[in-house]
Amino acid sequence: MSTTTDVIPSSRAFISDNMAGASPEIAQAVPASAAGHALPYGNDPFTGSVRRQLSETFERDVDVFPVSTGTAANCLGLAALTPPWGSVLCHPNSHINNDECGAPEFFTGGAKLVTVPGDDSKIDPDALHEAVRRKAGDVHSVQPTVVSISQATESGSVYTLDEIRRLATIAKDAGLRVHMDGARFANALEHLGATPAEMTWKAGIDVLSFGATKNGAMTADAIVSFDPVLATELAFRAKRAGQLASKTRFHAAQLDAYLADGLWLRNARQANTMATRLGDGLKAIPGTELLGSPQANILFCRLPQQATEGLLAEGYTFYHDRWAPGIVRFVTSFSHTFEDIDQLLDAVRRHTR
Amino acid sequence: MSTTTDVIPSSRAFISDNMAGASPEIAQAVPASAAGHALPYGNDPFTGSVRRQLSETFERDVDVFPVSTGTAANCLGLAALTPPWGSVLCHPNSHINNDECGAPEFFTGGAKLVTVPGDDSKIDPDALHEAVRRKAGDVHSVQPTVVSISQATESGSVYTLDEIRRLATIAKDAGLRVHMDGARFANALEHLGATPAEMTWKAGIDVLSFGATKNGAMTADAIVSFDPVLATELAFRAKRAGQLASKTRFHAAQLDAYLADGLWLRNARQANTMATRLGDGLKAIPGTELLGSPQANILFCRLPQQATEGLLAEGYTFYHDRWAPGIVRFVTSFSHTFEDIDQLLDAVRRHTR
Amino acid sequence: MSTTTDVIPSSRAFISDNMAGASPEIAQAVPASAAGHALPYGNDPFTGSVRRQLSETFERDVDVFPVSTGTAANCLGLAALTPPWGSVLCHPNSHINNDECGAPEFFTGGAKLVTVPGDDSKIDPDALHEAVRRKAGDVHSVQPTVVSISQATESGSVYTLDEIRRLATIAKDAGLRVHMDGARFANALEHLGATPAEMTWKAGIDVLSFGATKNGAMTADAIVSFDPVLATELAFRAKRAGQLASKTRFHAAQLDAYLADGLWLRNARQANTMATRLGDGLKAIPGTELLGSPQANILFCRLPQQATEGLLAEGYTFYHDRWAPGIVRFVTSFSHTFEDIDQLLDAVRRHTR
Amino acid sequence: MSTTTDVIPSSRAFISDNMAGASPEIAQAVPASAAGHALPYGNDPFTGSVRRQLSETFERDVDVFPVSTGTAANCLGLAALTPPWGSVLCHPNSHINNDECGAPEFFTGGAKLVTVPGDDSKIDPDALHEAVRRKAGDVHSVQPTVVSISQATESGSVYTLDEIRRLATIAKDAGLRVHMDGARFANALEHLGATPAEMTWKAGIDVLSFGATKNGAMTADAIVSFDPVLATELAFRAKRAGQLASKTRFHAAQLDAYLADGLWLRNARQANTMATRLGDGLKAIPGTELLGSPQANILFCRLPQQATEGLLAEGYTFYHDRWAPGIVRFVTSFSHTFEDIDQLLDAVRRHTR
Repeated sequence: MSTTTDVIPSSRAFISDNMAGASPEIAQAVPASAAGHALPYGNDPFTGSVRRQLSETFERDVDVFPVSTGTAANCLGLAALTPPWGSVLCHPNSHINNDECGAPEFFTGGAKLVTVPGDDSKIDPDALHEAVRRKAGDVHSVQPTVVSISQATESGSVYTLDEIRRLATIAKDAGLRVHMDGARFANALEHLGATPAEMTWKAGIDVLSFGATKNGAMTADAIVSFDPVLATELAFRAKRAGQLASKTRFHAAQLDAYLADGLWLRNARQANTMATRLGDGLKAIPGTELLGSPQANILFCRLPQQATEGLLAEGYTFYHDRWAPGIVRFVTSFSHTFEDIDQLLDAVRRHTR
Repeated sequence: MSTTTDVIPSSRAFISDNMAGASPEIAQAVPASAAGHALPYGNDPFTGSVRRQLSETFERDVDVFPVSTGTAANCLGLAALTPPWGSVLCHPNSHINNDECGAPEFFTGGAKLVTVPGDDSKIDPDALHEAVRRKAGDVHSVQPTVVSISQATESGSVYTLDEIRRLATIAKDAGLRVHMDGARFANALEHLGATPAEMTWKAGIDVLSFGATKNGAMTADAIVSFDPVLATELAFRAKRAGQLASKTRFHAAQLDAYLADGLWLRNARQANTMATRLGDGLKAIPGTELLGSPQANILFCRLPQQATEGLLAEGYTFYHDRWAPGIVRFVTSFSHTFEDIDQLLDAVRRHTR
Repeated sequence: MSTTTDVIPSSRAFISDNMAGASPEIAQAVPASAAGHALPYGNDPFTGSVRRQLSETFERDVDVFPVSTGTAANCLGLAALTPPWGSVLCHPNSHINNDECGAPEFFTGGAKLVTVPGDDSKIDPDALHEAVRRKAGDVHSVQPTVVSISQATESGSVYTLDEIRRLATIAKDAGLRVHMDGARFANALEHLGATPAEMTWKAGIDVLSFGATKNGAMTADAIVSFDPVLATELAFRAKRAGQLASKTRFHAAQLDAYLADGLWLRNARQANTMATRLGDGLKAIPGTELLGSPQANILFCRLPQQATEGLLAEGYTFYHDRWAPGIVRFVTSFSHTFEDIDQLLDAVRRHTR
Repeated sequence: MSTTTDVIPSSRAFISDNMAGASPEIAQAVPASAAGHALPYGNDPFTGSVRRQLSETFERDVDVFPVSTGTAANCLGLAALTPPWGSVLCHPNSHINNDECGAPEFFTGGAKLVTVPGDDSKIDPDALHEAVRRKAGDVHSVQPTVVSISQATESGSVYTLDEIRRLATIAKDAGLRVHMDGARFANALEHLGATPAEMTWKAGIDVLSFGATKNGAMTADAIVSFDPVLATELAFRAKRAGQLASKTRFHAAQLDAYLADGLWLRNARQANTMATRLGDGLKAIPGTELLGSPQANILFCRLPQQATEGLLAEGYTFYHDRWAPGIVRFVTSFSHTFEDIDQLLDAVRRHTR
């Protein structure tokens, strides 16, 4: 049995927000929900509570499907929105395009991801406008069917409400549906200061991957559907994909605690604040360059090689030279403290000199 | 947020072993593993520890893939063993055939389940002997490729080691692979008093669904592969199916605690003992009839209608009239006590008079 | 280049109706359609003509998709009628269940064939009545979605119009769709003396595999859909499955000639008449036994072993001992003559003595 | 029944080589093969003859699978070469990427097409060199598995033998397989003056789509595999995909006649010569511009708008303004004559003035 958990102190952990453990409230919710017997497969009080909390959160009835990974959330949602001969329009940098090993193709029965470019990892409206009608009705081509946007994006930028509405309008006008990969939904929401309803169904989103794992939960995300017509299909698809846990209560207990008393928003605020502090600090260090528009909890920058090497030598963990030579990514999470960030900035400063 | 968990007291909970919560040791392992940062996607100390514990348990190196459901464990394992044009030979009563909503077909890309009959939910060797060569080489037919056996079976019976070896030999002689659905692996092991190695790879099993959820864990089972050649394929298939959790440590922590100090075997023993006590008690009640050979923690019996109705009226939860009129199923778990069972027997007695 | 075609004379060819070549009218239609240029992908005059002829034949507008095999016709039709989590109810003897190597599972994305028994290879209405509601709404089970019936069946029997209507009513009342595998559609029609409309949409059929290959065409069958809503999906599915031929005119030319001047019905009549003559003759031979109700052009019988061996020794080709020891199948086609049948009967007689 | 075939005279038919009918030798081979009985499913003398002819053509034993479309040939070949989590590296202009409605994703069970750029629709070796190792071993990404090249390409260019060998070497060095989409194989071969062996297996090709339909056949292409290990898988995949025709002899008869006496090469030569003549003629017309390197039978050019309109008004059929405004594509075929080309040139000349 493992006795040492903390291989990597939070001050050194910047690979991704999934390096963090769990919020204590969520971690404690699990043993608290473990006693006693309950009906399996989501017919338990925790799952019911999550449904209620999410319906309140989104100011309307929503259908909720707790799942064990963001990949499952994304791909089940997409599968309910597109036939196998459809295409999913997404940004080249999107997680579904790069980091899910073809899971979208697997879950959808072979639909095709078609990328639509844009700055800051956001889909460009003009490019989308062209893409939504591309070869529509042409039997030789997959048919544009869904637009999937990541909010926040994979590079830490955040669509404004206007931007979401604009993309959704372009999609809907051409008969497409809109999916949101919200692995970092709370971080985006915090950045915008918007309501969950405004950032989703009021802006035209049909299905949302409501991320929790990266923001303090453990192994629980949820599909939130704003289209009641999809509920039956999502239920069968989730079961068939091995995503209907018999003891769903343990996924639900995490989400329940995540939503209670605004924990999810506090966690996101902390992560975002840490990224802002890191970004501000980096900007002040000559020889480093901040890239893109970090608005959530991801930050790309260019560091001198000796800085990268120096950090690595001190035990810092982060991705570097993966997107391009010299490019470094730092991801902050609810678990980081001012002290963690200041230590990192200090280290960069020392090694950049 | 949910405040009442215990909708159903253990004394009334006999629908399935998945109604139980979690063993305290496992429930507590989660917050214990939640602090601190670790590498994601299984590169954490907990996952490493599970691999070591399972390798010790099986007395050889094994490949381990923690997953969130038994359905995922079964279907990923099968997908690694059969091409889409293969057939999976299984018992008509098997979980993969009845209770996974076509998940095996989904994960395998359309392989076909072909049922092979036998008493007590066990595959009959003679029937298997015929099935393994049926239309072999005939391009118009799916090709027998895998035999999948449930240990313990869905009706609570347990294959003897000889029976497993015989089925595996029939399979191997015809070039097929062997899969074991071990959703109730520990219950079967306890019943036989065998070692894990004897009941699996030494008997010819290639891939095992190592169940934990039904026996005290929460949302964690594992694929255990005894064929190193399959490791790469299983890794890609798991990721692609949304079964590579970023915070795998939380699946692993459950399995780690499950395996530590023999908890898994103690839990199974308790569940089996409760079923035996229940079976013995029922046999002594005139007007009831015990069916099949309950050897693990599932028990089928025939109750008079007024007994079923009386139990339901007292808040007992269990499946009835699902397989045939008058047939009742009780499933016991680690969480049941002598008192629970004796209460149930008392109630049956009262209502059968 | 091949110079000898006729390896097997018609008098010896009883394996299947697909041993026959093509009707001269159809064979000649191909070079007749080969000159000149036409728009590809079905936008040619031949395909238009087939659509018109089939709409006339069925007394209503129908959607027509020429395909190259019966397997493709069946499986594309089924795929348009069921989601991946649906089940297709079919007879255990059906071609889709036995002879398509899992093609239905492939085309549908993993739907499950669930067999429903019945005498003479026909689905029993009572058994169907139970099957259509089995586990309906249960997320753990595939959902009954389509009933597929073979007309004529794989053992040569033919559903009456009443029988089709009854099965279709049972299906529709439970919300299922109805598919007809008409690989031997013309043979069934001839036997019943019904109209194509009566035997299909008027009886409740949604999608038909309109067979032509076995009855005088070469490499062309057609999906005929009576539900206009399915047309778009069928078009994309056909293309995506490699079944939209660029020079569709050459499939269409076969179907066009097949339908012209009643050739298809004349061919079926000839095949059926030959089977009837063969059946009548066999009945008169002591020591042989006719099985089932051969009504189309397939006939099962029991022959003494020395008769089977004697026939084989004389170069007769047919299936034997495949379904059970001693069981022989003869299939007649448009290409057989009275003389062929009488020779065969004579041979059976000689070897049975 | 259709009575008018020749909607479009050859002098006006430049949309694609699939507008042409069939070579008389091939058209006549069909009725010649239609008489008499033969074993079904490829066990007929014609299929045997095709296998022999192709083995001679390629100077070694090859496995041959006649199919009804190029889409089926390409996608079955790819499916045999890649697991579902693999990626197929192909040019952005490739037919599999643009014109098969997601068929590659369907047949492979969800593998991903990853495009690799290059001039003239040819994959650039340096870009390929980078692509073949991209994220190799990274479980979060599809794995580079196959390189697919079109010979001739979709824009009419032809890889030299050196270019093929170089791409194949890059692929093989990284452990990838190589597929060739030879929809216009003969046109490329004629242009190079190479042998079929040199252009395929001797250069590193594993599986070839051997096109015939566009070059004088009707509904027959073939998968030619140079790797005997793939034969079984290809057979099952073809059956399961509805591509094992019962009367395979009619596909085979087309291929048999296509290969006999060098017809296939004569047809390709004629098509290429017509394209060369057309290209040379266009170059001499001021105000038009020839694009790319037309080496086979496809030619892209820029025409003044009034020229395009003038041609359309005269009944010319061709693609225009599809790739970019002002861009016109002409495709020649075996069926075009010097007179056809000269008429077209004359018309362009008249309308360009």
